[in-house]
Amino acid sequence: MILDAARAQFSERGYEKASVRSIAKAAGVDSALVHHYFGTKEQVFAAAVEVAFAPAFQAPGAVEAGPPEELGERLTRFILGVWENPETRAPLLAIVRSAVNNETAAAVFRDLVTGQVLSRIARGLDLPDAELRAGLAAAQLVGTAMLRYVIKVEPLASVDLEQIVARVAPVVQGHLTADRTRPGRPGTADQAR
Amino acid sequence: MILDAARAQFSERGYEKASVRSIAKAAGVDSALVHHYFGTKEQVFAAAVEVAFAPAFQAPGAVEAGPPEELGERLTRFILGVWENPETRAPLLAIVRSAVNNETAAAVFRDLVTGQVLSRIARGLDLPDAELRAGLAAAQLVGTAMLRYVIKVEPLASVDLEQIVARVAPVVQGHLTADRTRPGRPGTADQAR
Repeated sequence: MILDAARAQFSERGYEKASVRSIAKAAGVDSALVHHYFGTKEQVFAAAVEVAFAPAFQAPGAVEAGPPEELGERLTRFILGVWENPETRAPLLAIVRSAVNNETAAAVFRDLVTGQVLSRIARGLDLPDAELRAGLAAAQLVGTAMLRYVIKVEPLASVDLEQIVARVAPVVQGHLTADRTRPGRPGTADQAR
Repeated sequence: MILDAARAQFSERGYEKASVRSIAKAAGVDSALVHHYFGTKEQVFAAAVEVAFAPAFQAPGAVEAGPPEELGERLTRFILGVWENPETRAPLLAIVRSAVNNETAAAVFRDLVTGQVLSRIARGLDLPDAELRAGLAAAQLVGTAMLRYVIKVEPLASVDLEQIVARVAPVVQGHLTADRTRPGRPGTADQAR
């Protein structure tokens, strides 16, 4: 309840203008209660991010359950699935908006996404450059979500999700697992299947 | 001068709260002058986007000049180069912030980026699904820029640009030009070189 109000405040007013007082007012409670449960505005924001990203934080688990050569497809379906569903999209979008607009919000967002999603996926890869791989795979997914669901660039915004999965999943797989040691093919996103 | 003030206003106050009046005040001119030169707030925003994206709008030209098998690398170097330079990054970031936060701003942004960059790159490809290809290539680049320059996720934010180009350029090339007609390899981002 307080976190729903917090997310709405961060979304509508932006991180800077939202305050513990405005969040408490919107939730119909006293500011002291918000401070008691969550602490500072930064901590309220972190809690709101955690709740909004709860579906996405399950990505590492979803990704571990299955054959390694389908890792890219599982991760792609999982992340785009969270964005495809309006109920899980709305809170994500609110948080992304705050993170894009404010450095403090970006830092909170970055620490949570890195700690809860990227680092865990990277650990599963067991490769020396695993964190960079996870970051570039995330970049393809983040950019696809931005252009399809936020900016709504056509035809990306309207094509069937399966068409996107068919093209994006192999790229994600390539970033995560492609053999990068073979000479003469720098950066080749070769396919595991 | 008016457009610098407009960009700053859109960036600081957000699209909704910025007004022709506040932009005129920041530029030290009369509102009537802003209306005379640009029209409505939406039109001022479109003009600010055009100026901020002027470097990126040269992407199609930069991309055309060279061998087709290096298209991905040229486009990657061009777009990440615009983000790498703080002077060209600041105005881009201001506009992206507005577009992420407001539907009207997103529509203006989308129409300009689609019309001036994506459609022109797609025309150069001469393939039936060229616009979807351009969109997915853009998604990898947009996501990389977001995570490296805006959210600043490590190690993506700190690694040498060349490391990123080596991994992203083949993906962009694959999205744009990979043969997608061969059976049994759906979505394979195979490499032209």
